[in-house]
Amino acid sequence: MNYADFSKKFSTISAINMLPFDKETKAINWTGLEENIEFLLQNKMEVLVPNGNTGEFYALTVAEAKETTNKVVELVAGRATVMAGIGYAVETAIELGKAAQEAGADCVMIHQPIHPYITSRGAVTYFKTIIEALDIPSIIYFKDPHLSDEVLQELAPLEKLVGVKYAINDLPRFAKLVQTVPKEYNIAWICGTAEKWAPFFYNAGAVGFTSGLVNVYPEKSLELLNALRQGNQETVWKVWNEVLPFEDLRAKYNNGNNVVVIKEAMEQLGLTAGVTREPVDPLNEEDKREVAELLESWKMGLSRII
Amino acid sequence: MNYADFSKKFSTISAINMLPFDKETKAINWTGLEENIEFLLQNKMEVLVPNGNTGEFYALTVAEAKETTNKVVELVAGRATVMAGIGYAVETAIELGKAAQEAGADCVMIHQPIHPYITSRGAVTYFKTIIEALDIPSIIYFKDPHLSDEVLQELAPLEKLVGVKYAINDLPRFAKLVQTVPKEYNIAWICGTAEKWAPFFYNAGAVGFTSGLVNVYPEKSLELLNALRQGNQETVWKVWNEVLPFEDLRAKYNNGNNVVVIKEAMEQLGLTAGVTREPVDPLNEEDKREVAELLESWKMGLSRII
Repeated sequence: MNYADFSKKFSTISAINMLPFDKETKAINWTGLEENIEFLLQNKMEVLVPNGNTGEFYALTVAEAKETTNKVVELVAGRATVMAGIGYAVETAIELGKAAQEAGADCVMIHQPIHPYITSRGAVTYFKTIIEALDIPSIIYFKDPHLSDEVLQELAPLEKLVGVKYAINDLPRFAKLVQTVPKEYNIAWICGTAEKWAPFFYNAGAVGFTSGLVNVYPEKSLELLNALRQGNQETVWKVWNEVLPFEDLRAKYNNGNNVVVIKEAMEQLGLTAGVTREPVDPLNEEDKREVAELLESWKMGLSRII
Repeated sequence: MNYADFSKKFSTISAINMLPFDKETKAINWTGLEENIEFLLQNKMEVLVPNGNTGEFYALTVAEAKETTNKVVELVAGRATVMAGIGYAVETAIELGKAAQEAGADCVMIHQPIHPYITSRGAVTYFKTIIEALDIPSIIYFKDPHLSDEVLQELAPLEKLVGVKYAINDLPRFAKLVQTVPKEYNIAWICGTAEKWAPFFYNAGAVGFTSGLVNVYPEKSLELLNALRQGNQETVWKVWNEVLPFEDLRAKYNNGNNVVVIKEAMEQLGLTAGVTREPVDPLNEEDKREVAELLESWKMGLSRII
């Protein structure tokens, strides 16, 4: 595999698909997932990420996470790049990674270790062991501000590390990191905190951003992507202002609203999303009304649906 | 089962056993675990907690976590109360809880959900679903300061909830919680942040504390427990000052040192501890020297070993 070329695939939106759960049993609604994946593909998404946080990875059993990746790979059928989320203890992450590889996923996204005690040296070994155990390339989801960026600087030379989804909103820190990692390592720097932060991350060297909004309003995410690519600042800030209230609503209650706002918006639009699993509860009435008002304010753009 | 009487079992130290890993393969060293459990029992520990954070729960596969509980129950053989750590997605936590129950564990400790997005209402459902799915009683490990104490107030009436390991070092918040939960709910309030915080939590209503130090110097933890029970403030602060440097060393690097300091101290004392697994790395040379100096300063008390 030409890893240098591969890393170029991420100069776009990394679409984190949601995972619909049945309203009664909370079982995975596979038909709903199929609709969601088709929706993302028809809306020109080039990179799909099953088992991301918007896909409620941590509410799945290990077996369900594998099944989800299998299903997404099968549904995508080569029409986009599949980046499968993997995580937990090293051994479990490798098990998930190998399963993704066998299923035909193009690459994996290694979640932040959930261990309460992490050393920077230990994090290097954690990621390196997983990356080296797999044949398909890896993207690191870097989220814990307590970890030093030296972790990434040290791992960057690994051929099979092709990207970093950086989710620490410290722009000087990110800019310095991008500038100090040699270009020849071919790391795709991805803004890991979506549309709200994408303009700032692009300015600091990011080439792509993750998005949960794409499950609801992919046209808006694409408009932002194109504006960022063209350096069209006017459009960037116009779109940014349009999506900001939605992203702020998702950030409410220390991000407790993150996924449930997407599911609620999808349901209000007549898309299949169902409920979230524990430890996330359905949206309260006030926030439901705010979702409705936001969708109303987007009416023109969403005319395809409503 | 008389749950009211059961909750009284926790008016003591909850000893979080460490789990030794082989220095080469990082496999669990079962003989080392046996030594550790015997050591804790011979040192009068009444509550043992396999799969706690000091036992590197998050570095284990689900299968290993089950095996560890099985082994500890077998080794303890009724000589102490076994509180088995369980966690992850609801379904996985129930699977671990049922396995612990079948193995003969006395109760479970439900780890803080690792999900990045948690709502307080969702946390109630998360804990409640797990507690109600098991026959043996549960203790909640409450650690995320973003969650409201209303979660615990709402769950407190559940008969099978017998204790809370409170690990948020906000004493007014803890005191208010203890005072507002009716005594007849028989919740054992346990200081979840060990010897360093135990005097403050006792003052606010705790009846026991967790300890990782017991793997190294259980006599000191017992001395603190007895002083706290007797309200002997002079001894409380004497012991507190003796153990503080050790606990502070464990807290270094955003708690990255938490477990590895215990393993290093044990190894220096000739006990079997081995290495930590990723994402924790071996201690650096400077910190190793500090461990040696601390053990040297404790020489008299540790004369049983060195």
